[in-house]
Amino acid sequence: MQQLRDRCAIVGTGWTNYSKNSGTSVLSLALEASKKAIEDAGLRAQDIDGVVTYSLADSVPTNAVATCLGLPQMRYYADLSAGGNVACAAVTKAALAVASGMANYVLVYRALNGSSGIRYAGSDFSRILATTSIHTDAEQQFLDPYGILIPVHHFALMCRRHMVKYGTTTKQLGAVAVTCRGNACLNERAMMRTPMTMEDYEKAPVIAEPFRMFDCCLQSDGACAVVVTSAERAKELKQKPVYIMGAAEGSGPYGRGGMWGNYWPDHAECYAKYVAPDLFNMAGVTPRDIDVAEIYDCFTYSVIVQLEDFGFCKKGEGGAFVEGGRIQLGGELPINTCGGLLSEAYIHGLNLVVEAVSQLRGDAGSRQVKDAEIALVTAGGAATTGSALILRR
Amino acid sequence: MQQLRDRCAIVGTGWTNYSKNSGTSVLSLALEASKKAIEDAGLRAQDIDGVVTYSLADSVPTNAVATCLGLPQMRYYADLSAGGNVACAAVTKAALAVASGMANYVLVYRALNGSSGIRYAGSDFSRILATTSIHTDAEQQFLDPYGILIPVHHFALMCRRHMVKYGTTTKQLGAVAVTCRGNACLNERAMMRTPMTMEDYEKAPVIAEPFRMFDCCLQSDGACAVVVTSAERAKELKQKPVYIMGAAEGSGPYGRGGMWGNYWPDHAECYAKYVAPDLFNMAGVTPRDIDVAEIYDCFTYSVIVQLEDFGFCKKGEGGAFVEGGRIQLGGELPINTCGGLLSEAYIHGLNLVVEAVSQLRGDAGSRQVKDAEIALVTAGGAATTGSALILRR
Repeated sequence: MQQLRDRCAIVGTGWTNYSKNSGTSVLSLALEASKKAIEDAGLRAQDIDGVVTYSLADSVPTNAVATCLGLPQMRYYADLSAGGNVACAAVTKAALAVASGMANYVLVYRALNGSSGIRYAGSDFSRILATTSIHTDAEQQFLDPYGILIPVHHFALMCRRHMVKYGTTTKQLGAVAVTCRGNACLNERAMMRTPMTMEDYEKAPVIAEPFRMFDCCLQSDGACAVVVTSAERAKELKQKPVYIMGAAEGSGPYGRGGMWGNYWPDHAECYAKYVAPDLFNMAGVTPRDIDVAEIYDCFTYSVIVQLEDFGFCKKGEGGAFVEGGRIQLGGELPINTCGGLLSEAYIHGLNLVVEAVSQLRGDAGSRQVKDAEIALVTAGGAATTGSALILRR
Repeated sequence: MQQLRDRCAIVGTGWTNYSKNSGTSVLSLALEASKKAIEDAGLRAQDIDGVVTYSLADSVPTNAVATCLGLPQMRYYADLSAGGNVACAAVTKAALAVASGMANYVLVYRALNGSSGIRYAGSDFSRILATTSIHTDAEQQFLDPYGILIPVHHFALMCRRHMVKYGTTTKQLGAVAVTCRGNACLNERAMMRTPMTMEDYEKAPVIAEPFRMFDCCLQSDGACAVVVTSAERAKELKQKPVYIMGAAEGSGPYGRGGMWGNYWPDHAECYAKYVAPDLFNMAGVTPRDIDVAEIYDCFTYSVIVQLEDFGFCKKGEGGAFVEGGRIQLGGELPINTCGGLLSEAYIHGLNLVVEAVSQLRGDAGSRQVKDAEIALVTAGGAATTGSALILRR
């Protein structure tokens, strides 16, 4: 069996304005980002023959985008019902379609009105959880009475467990938030471009202990998209190809509960523990080879636990790892160079793929990581299920 | 690029009782069918490292099934938000994961309480359409005032168009219904085992003209599952492998509207027109080589239009094709040997894959198609988007 390594490349990226109120439909957002990604690749819409997206009932299905773009045919399509945990898996699915010859050019998009429409920290999101797949699930009834309704309530408890077990501090959480904001200030796409100090971080109101406001990612309106094709075809196109070296996804045992992980034996660990071996094995590299990492940061804590479980430091030492500038631009492992979900925008993780491509093309301007050759992108913040990519220029 | 042909096989199948009231949860149904499929393959649950399902918010997500089965790890997962149009595409996705080495044994299941729970011909289904991906769509507001709410309303109009354009008759629709019922009478799994004549068919009440009751598929509680692995691994297992020769999916232009296809230029055609060339090309066979066909029969008309668009007869001649016993057991092209969605059960199309496997293993008992070597399974009944498989023993 032939593995996926280096057989496919990301050849185009596109994005809309990221805002608090797009003033338009998610379909319009999806189309704008998709058209830009196709144009960026030097392709025409009629070249696209596969479409992948993911959503929690808050976006537009692939056949709507295919029709509105005027695609002559879809040969592969996937509407994944999932959260940010599949931001990388969606790209992998596109790559599998391309590698097998089922489709030649696959568009992957994510569009949402996450601020002006369905807010993931609001009752609309609870409603989605209650009316989509989770509605068949007995778990939520045992959580609701305790006020555990939306992601922040769950992640706060996981973070607290990590603090108790390993001595992780809120200053360490703050180091992640301040790093992301610093990067966002260098990124014209970013929604949060006001400089932030550790004092600013600490003065912000508590949302769910131990999380303050800036521990939590944004809620954003916007869309982004990428185009995946074969390594052979990529060479003929406009942009420097960004190859998919490694791709892995999934969960360990007791993955149930999605992000909540109620059955997870250790709430201070995450999916990365299980995904990392497959990922680095396929890519043939180690964490030391990663030049830049775009780590799914729905919450600051998510970065710390993933850095540990992807093997950048020992278990329990993620808090110390993010201190002292190590994760900043110019540090040992620059992370979330666009500002991440915390300070660029919450396009449900696909914007981290877009940023990794930019870094590997070397066109990230003042936030460019010098000579970035290999990037890690992750999807799934402290949750039990997730996915990741290793990309190379 | 290496194609998918013959690289993977279906090695296990499982199903629950199909009923009007399962008395249990969709999770229990999913687990029962999954365990049986795994056992049928001669595997243990811990061998499974990939899980795929599809639903319209009426089933259980893959991580629930993975946790409850006690899987040590998922390496590939896909929760497709889709209708029966992906019943075959779900198997293809499992095969792509296997062929690339991302997972070794992938479980595909579909579980629903489609009778005692969310009924697709009821207001619950309208609610799902209104609250899942379609909720971002402007189309439904123009259909609701005309009472076009659920699948039968749309398919009836498409069927009427076919009748007007090609002279297709209700007796021809009846031939499909009577054929399926005849097959169901030979299938101990089937829900509808009362013999039915053309007179019985014609006496049934009209649901949405031109459809009478027996033109419409069942609403069923139940689940079924299959296990996919590589051709190499398949040889070591308990059952005679059923190889995936061909797999194709997608839509033509103007695929939007899912099953409704509001923009479709010709409402008397379907997705099969676009999927068929890729499908037969990959498999390296023609419609003449198909020994048995399991055609997605959400409505009787769906069979007629798909037979045409998959190339079993000329366009417009599907009505005549289904007459005279040609599609019955012993005929030129036996179809829906289990009774189909019309008379076995509506497990959203995956039960047609299960039946094709049974036919190719040669264990279909009194409904066995003699020497069946190659089977077609289709998914997507007259809709603009669909998928299909060609399987061989």
